[in-house]
Amino acid sequence: MTDKASTSRIPLTVLGAGAMGAALARAWLAAGHPVTVWNRTPARAEALAADGAGVAASAAEAVAASRLVIVCLLDDASVGEALDGVALGGRDLVNLTTGTPAEGRARAAWATARGARFLDGGIMAVPPMIGDAGSGGYVLYSGSGELFEEHRDTLAVPTGTRYVGEDPGFAALYDVALLSAMSGMFAGVTHAFALIGREDVPPKDFAPLLADWLTAMAPAAHQAAERLESGDHGKGVVSNLAMQVAGNATLLRTAGEQGVSAELLTPYTDLMARWLAEGHGEEDPAGMVELLDLRRGEDA
Amino acid sequence: MTDKASTSRIPLTVLGAGAMGAALARAWLAAGHPVTVWNRTPARAEALAADGAGVAASAAEAVAASRLVIVCLLDDASVGEALDGVALGGRDLVNLTTGTPAEGRARAAWATARGARFLDGGIMAVPPMIGDAGSGGYVLYSGSGELFEEHRDTLAVPTGTRYVGEDPGFAALYDVALLSAMSGMFAGVTHAFALIGREDVPPKDFAPLLADWLTAMAPAAHQAAERLESGDHGKGVVSNLAMQVAGNATLLRTAGEQGVSAELLTPYTDLMARWLAEGHGEEDPAGMVELLDLRRGEDA
Ligand SMILES: NC(=O)c1ccc[n+]([C@@H]2O[C@H](COP(=O)([O-])OP(=O)(O)OC[C@H]3O[C@@H](n4cnc5c(N)ncnc54)[C@H](OP(=O)(O)O)[C@@H]3O)[C@@H](O)[C@H]2O)c1
Ligand SMILES: NC(=O)c1ccc[n+]([C@@H]2O[C@H](COP(=O)([O-])OP(=O)(O)OC[C@H]3O[C@@H](n4cnc5c(N)ncnc54)[C@H](OP(=O)(O)O)[C@@H]3O)[C@@H](O)[C@H]2O)c1
Repeated sequence: MTDKASTSRIPLTVLGAGAMGAALARAWLAAGHPVTVWNRTPARAEALAADGAGVAASAAEAVAASRLVIVCLLDDASVGEALDGVALGGRDLVNLTTGTPAEGRARAAWATARGARFLDGGIMAVPPMIGDAGSGGYVLYSGSGELFEEHRDTLAVPTGTRYVGEDPGFAALYDVALLSAMSGMFAGVTHAFALIGREDVPPKDFAPLLADWLTAMAPAAHQAAERLESGDHGKGVVSNLAMQVAGNATLLRTAGEQGVSAELLTPYTDLMARWLAEGHGEEDPAGMVELLDLRRGEDA
Repeated sequence: MTDKASTSRIPLTVLGAGAMGAALARAWLAAGHPVTVWNRTPARAEALAADGAGVAASAAEAVAASRLVIVCLLDDASVGEALDGVALGGRDLVNLTTGTPAEGRARAAWATARGARFLDGGIMAVPPMIGDAGSGGYVLYSGSGELFEEHRDTLAVPTGTRYVGEDPGFAALYDVALLSAMSGMFAGVTHAFALIGREDVPPKDFAPLLADWLTAMAPAAHQAAERLESGDHGKGVVSNLAMQVAGNATLLRTAGEQGVSAELLTPYTDLMARWLAEGHGEEDPAGMVELLDLRRGEDA
């Protein structure tokens, strides 16, 4: 990069040189940032020295080296362990360790009590996407909007950024919600490949139809959101619940005929059947979300 | 359409004037085809007379009216009932009734024994998409390739077409596999909306991230297909099974914290745990498809 030397890039620290931490550190190094790394097992941090990273002997030394501190460890418990007793006053802590919303909120209170500004992040990318501007990956951020605005350009170096609000639990909430939805999609894909498994259909012939179909149907999330927000599940219904429940019978019958376990399908078909039994047959099925709420009815 | 009168469109018959049959009949009528309709309950067929359809008094009369006969009834049993005793010799029967692969194969043998050519279809569209060339909808076809080639242009009038092979079970197989995968995706979307349900996050703010994320992840079906075809689950693994199983714990913990039932998530996380227990931790999880095969081990 020709502007590597000509622009002054702010220094930063990366705690954790696992697969993701190392990819992040390399992206900042490649963009000309002075980067200090620390890793519990020193060899992994030392591997980054060849790329120009400074290696700190302890987490405390690494935190002292830069105001902006990126944390990318295994889980929230490892963040607590690594930073136990480390002075955080005046630091800008950006926690890219995957966790739950409650963990993000508790970690924010913990950091704030220690005099640090805190931003939580959820990485929607795998390591090979880091540093590749066209990969479509991004990090969800929530917490200190001030911190985010101040370091916006630096945070945008490894991958895209999306700030989703002051609540430090929101990045994790969005992150886990997206991953959970993806898990459902992959369960569906697994079932679909099982159905063609014993037929004379090459998976590669079927995959383009599958990817295209899922892509075409993903925007249905917008219509569901509109119904959930308005609470109107009855207007302009295209495929009502009763019709979909009838259609599910064909899906289950086919699984049986093809010798495929329906275990990945039945929880959703059961949920639809329960919502039908509650009298929502003529409606769009989006309202079914309510059945998953374990505190349902407590509000009344 | 200016060419409505100037081009001669082949006449055809539509059996079934339900939501889908009526939409199909209207699309052909709009394109200038002479269309004869029959419906068990006459009023639904008669409603199409205003659009120019000829109304037949019986299924036999309707079948006699055109060589090309489109069938769009509730299910395979209703096709058997409606065509019981009707002469099919020399007819081109195109069955757009949703069914299973086995039903498609049996119906093909039945039609062929009665002297008809047979094509089975699976409609990947809802009625409002029929007649809208830009909707992205299409019909999967399998069975007589001769019939498909001969009527290709006519079949393309209401929506897109994709011919997937001579095996008359393939259209239903692909159809059900796509719908099953979509069902998984919608289960994931339902769980995701439940997670944000009690938070101060408007569903409409979350929906764009959700739709974009699912769209970005749908092409993973291609990589899974490559692994299933090659049988190589160990080369160039980006997110191995062990890491994904660890990540699932965060998804489940979050569901618990948010007061959301994990019933839609657990079958897939359980499947991953079983595959891990069988020693596939370092692999890509695509091989897990095997666990759904109820005849697993019988080949050995
Ligand atoms: N890899 C991905 O595809 C991906 C995608 C999105 C998000 N993420 C998230 O990114 C974070 C890091 O993932 P990764 O892929 O880099 O994992 P990884 O390769 O397994 O690395 C884990 C890191 O955490 C450190 N660690 C674990 N326990 C520790 C403790 N008690 N004290 C101090 N350090 C500890 C490890 O240090 P040692 O080297 O000493 O063990 C290592 O640096 C995770 O939260 C993960 O969910 C990863
Ligand atoms: N609608 C969709 O979104 C959609 C999408 C894709 C595929 N499909 C498929 O398209 C086919 C038709 O669906 P649709 O939406 O048109 O359903 P529908 O509106 O419920 O209509 C069902 C049709 O089947 C007829 N029928 C039912 N039982 C019969 C019997 N024993 N003998 C003769 N006729 C019988 C009905 O006649 P009566 O009027 O006399 O009851 C009516 O014409 C189904 O296989 C469906 O799965 C529909």
